[in-house]
Amino acid sequence: MLTRDELLKHKPLIMAGPCAVESKEQITSIAEALAPMGVHVLRSQFWKPRTSAADFQGVGEAGFAWVREIKEKTGLLVATEIVDKDHIPLTHGTSDILWVGARNMQNFELLKALAKDDRPVILKRGFINTMKEWLASADYIGRERVILCERGVRTGADSMRFTLDINSALVAKHDHGMPVIADPSHTTGRRDMVPAMTLASVAAGLDGIVVEVHNDPENALSDSKQQITPETFKDLLDKVRKVYAIATGIA
Amino acid sequence: MLTRDELLKHKPLIMAGPCAVESKEQITSIAEALAPMGVHVLRSQFWKPRTSAADFQGVGEAGFAWVREIKEKTGLLVATEIVDKDHIPLTHGTSDILWVGARNMQNFELLKALAKDDRPVILKRGFINTMKEWLASADYIGRERVILCERGVRTGADSMRFTLDINSALVAKHDHGMPVIADPSHTTGRRDMVPAMTLASVAAGLDGIVVEVHNDPENALSDSKQQITPETFKDLLDKVRKVYAIATGIA
Amino acid sequence: MLTRDELLKHKPLIMAGPCAVESKEQITSIAEALAPMGVHVLRSQFWKPRTSAADFQGVGEAGFAWVREIKEKTGLLVATEIVDKDHIPLTHGTSDILWVGARNMQNFELLKALAKDDRPVILKRGFINTMKEWLASADYIGRERVILCERGVRTGADSMRFTLDINSALVAKHDHGMPVIADPSHTTGRRDMVPAMTLASVAAGLDGIVVEVHNDPENALSDSKQQITPETFKDLLDKVRKVYAIATGIA
Amino acid sequence: MLTRDELLKHKPLIMAGPCAVESKEQITSIAEALAPMGVHVLRSQFWKPRTSAADFQGVGEAGFAWVREIKEKTGLLVATEIVDKDHIPLTHGTSDILWVGARNMQNFELLKALAKDDRPVILKRGFINTMKEWLASADYIGRERVILCERGVRTGADSMRFTLDINSALVAKHDHGMPVIADPSHTTGRRDMVPAMTLASVAAGLDGIVVEVHNDPENALSDSKQQITPETFKDLLDKVRKVYAIATGIA
Repeated sequence: MLTRDELLKHKPLIMAGPCAVESKEQITSIAEALAPMGVHVLRSQFWKPRTSAADFQGVGEAGFAWVREIKEKTGLLVATEIVDKDHIPLTHGTSDILWVGARNMQNFELLKALAKDDRPVILKRGFINTMKEWLASADYIGRERVILCERGVRTGADSMRFTLDINSALVAKHDHGMPVIADPSHTTGRRDMVPAMTLASVAAGLDGIVVEVHNDPENALSDSKQQITPETFKDLLDKVRKVYAIATGIA
Repeated sequence: MLTRDELLKHKPLIMAGPCAVESKEQITSIAEALAPMGVHVLRSQFWKPRTSAADFQGVGEAGFAWVREIKEKTGLLVATEIVDKDHIPLTHGTSDILWVGARNMQNFELLKALAKDDRPVILKRGFINTMKEWLASADYIGRERVILCERGVRTGADSMRFTLDINSALVAKHDHGMPVIADPSHTTGRRDMVPAMTLASVAAGLDGIVVEVHNDPENALSDSKQQITPETFKDLLDKVRKVYAIATGIA
Repeated sequence: MLTRDELLKHKPLIMAGPCAVESKEQITSIAEALAPMGVHVLRSQFWKPRTSAADFQGVGEAGFAWVREIKEKTGLLVATEIVDKDHIPLTHGTSDILWVGARNMQNFELLKALAKDDRPVILKRGFINTMKEWLASADYIGRERVILCERGVRTGADSMRFTLDINSALVAKHDHGMPVIADPSHTTGRRDMVPAMTLASVAAGLDGIVVEVHNDPENALSDSKQQITPETFKDLLDKVRKVYAIATGIA
Repeated sequence: MLTRDELLKHKPLIMAGPCAVESKEQITSIAEALAPMGVHVLRSQFWKPRTSAADFQGVGEAGFAWVREIKEKTGLLVATEIVDKDHIPLTHGTSDILWVGARNMQNFELLKALAKDDRPVILKRGFINTMKEWLASADYIGRERVILCERGVRTGADSMRFTLDINSALVAKHDHGMPVIADPSHTTGRRDMVPAMTLASVAAGLDGIVVEVHNDPENALSDSKQQITPETFKDLLDKVRKVYAIATGIA
């Protein structure tokens, strides 16, 4: 079984994939574009937490078979957001890494259920949660299984959807010894700004990135405006690796 | 069965009770002090969402019998926070009103489960959620069953635990036609400030208040610093009724 | 000469007047409507700090004679915002009270110049300043001459222009012994919400209010949307006095 | 005379120097360390805006001669913060670039006075000002003379002193065509975090940096905790140039 610390041997850790799994063709096409770039983990969201009940809620378990086929073919690891504790056992054999979204960072019943699993868990930070709260939520799961993910805070002067709080990510990493990755897609909400925020994150020495990549962003069923194409991501990855190496001295 | 609109015939709606049910003696003593004051609803928290896993998590179902006995004796209505969708069916016959805490405002799976119930639901606002998000969460449940509860936002200049956002409560009420109550206990985090924030809320014409009242605040198992005694609450209630009548013209 | 503490014998202190002095007719008409209501202080803004250089910047010294005539006729005290240290000496004989706007709360050169005057100074809080910063700015002037004014903070979830931070006003008053008044006009930015926020402020026991009142709000040269008419203010004042008396026990 | 656009031919623009000019020896020592590194502009703060009146307020005009001597010897350009409109004419012949601090971003009288000068002006963003407000303040001065400076916003979840809002800096740059530099010293408030935030800023493609560098940070008269040594800065500058070249393609 993959442990968090094995996963973190990838420096920086590269996670990418669509906002949501939409169809076998979509996720396969994206995965086949990403695997040759050296991406480590495929975002595979089967259930989508949405602000509005009227929005697309994900394909659910129907997508498991598609993704297992992709894993076998490409060797990609798979990360899946958990929105309901009952989904956790279902994902065994499909998802190598679990994920808690920003809106569930303090859904303590979900955290307690995740504590009973043994896979690595990515814990996104809530809209305005403090360091103490973020770490307390990690402790619910078990800190040694957790990778924190900074995805932006909400402020009174937001020029994009959220303000990426690299300062807090650095405090979590250096003062508290936690691995931290950044999500430049949700903080910007716009694809033209994703590369700059991605490079900023790795230049700060954060441990990895998770970027929304879609083969046809314009027609994506969710987060259409912030997903980038595999081609854009390929160019960006080249810069990511160079910048990370200069910033951290880790090549 | 009690509907939201029947509940709202109480003007203002008065909810009070301890942060958490701790023992039969504790909840009975508090309820017996509150009932003669004309309190409408007893806070009865069987499960507590806590920032840290090490803190008191509530008495759970053990408390149901105590509270049912209290209901019979006093006629008080009972409101209970739901932190786990599996708890919802358990509360039938005990809880007249359900409750979603600030940290679960965007726990959409919980909201979907509540949509299948038919009791009134109090929906507290998350730490920094927008009006659009608050209303979208109400829509998950069914807006006509929801009473919103403003409990304070987190800002960069918090002088107390949270800043009570009466402005947003007014917008929810007047621009969106939603009933809104205020929680002066969580916003202040200190008992000496609860009366002033309570009076501010009813002076603004909000539809009610929910105040933490404990028979022995110093020794409460949670939120010890913000609970007031029944005696303090009694004096406050007298002012609440007078201020509300002047502010709204509703006597 | 009027001292701050003499001014504060008015409980609550009532300040009202237009956003800006626009003409002799305008300020006279408003003052004559306000004086019989028992208003203590007339807002008389000769210089307006505006976000955009293209907006109306005030009538300047031209207005002094108009206001001196009003003072003589009505006995109203006059409060004037100072935006430029060179204006301070000009206001002697006209303005009884000086005023520092939110955007100048940390304009330390202005504060130092005000320290050389001896009139009471109202110090509005900046958009997101902490208690420590607010008090430090008061200390620049001399704390015993200062009345703090809470006018709303900017948060990530503003439903109106700013969120009135009554919590902080209470901390300034009770923990730091400072007199604090509230400005319900700037926090709301909309006249229909001014009465509710005004009543909330006095119900919390704050020491006074400053409300924008204009004889013809629709045609005001600035802040047109938030000024209320003298008629609306008269009804509000009646409630203000009753609510303040109940909340504080001071009749 | 140096124009803003000539200044911006330096890609990225490197500004460095102590928080405040303290003595001839101090500023000379720092300048002589910085000049050989290819720093373009020396921070020369003669007047310090301080939250508390009791803190060191700067050496004032006494420092002009020291800095003019440094300019002659090193060829460094000089940037000076203006806190009082009366200081502007005094700085002719000494300061090539003027500077408006965060707390004065909406001190409109100061902006109007700066509009009468013709030197480039660096306009720092206030604690929580919106894009619209930032640009409106630039318009007071004359947008073509202004370089914006992002120095961090205050949020409800600050892990350091302020949260550097690279998102807003990017919007100012790409959506509004403004040059934007970053101040990693004030956002972090701690020297160990300055390099990471500096690299993040140039990786995002911002136009330059302004970093506090002091020959003896421990004994600095202001901002002691956030100033780095010339040696640390030299290593950082090497990485800054490489990261900027990769991120922007500009070598």
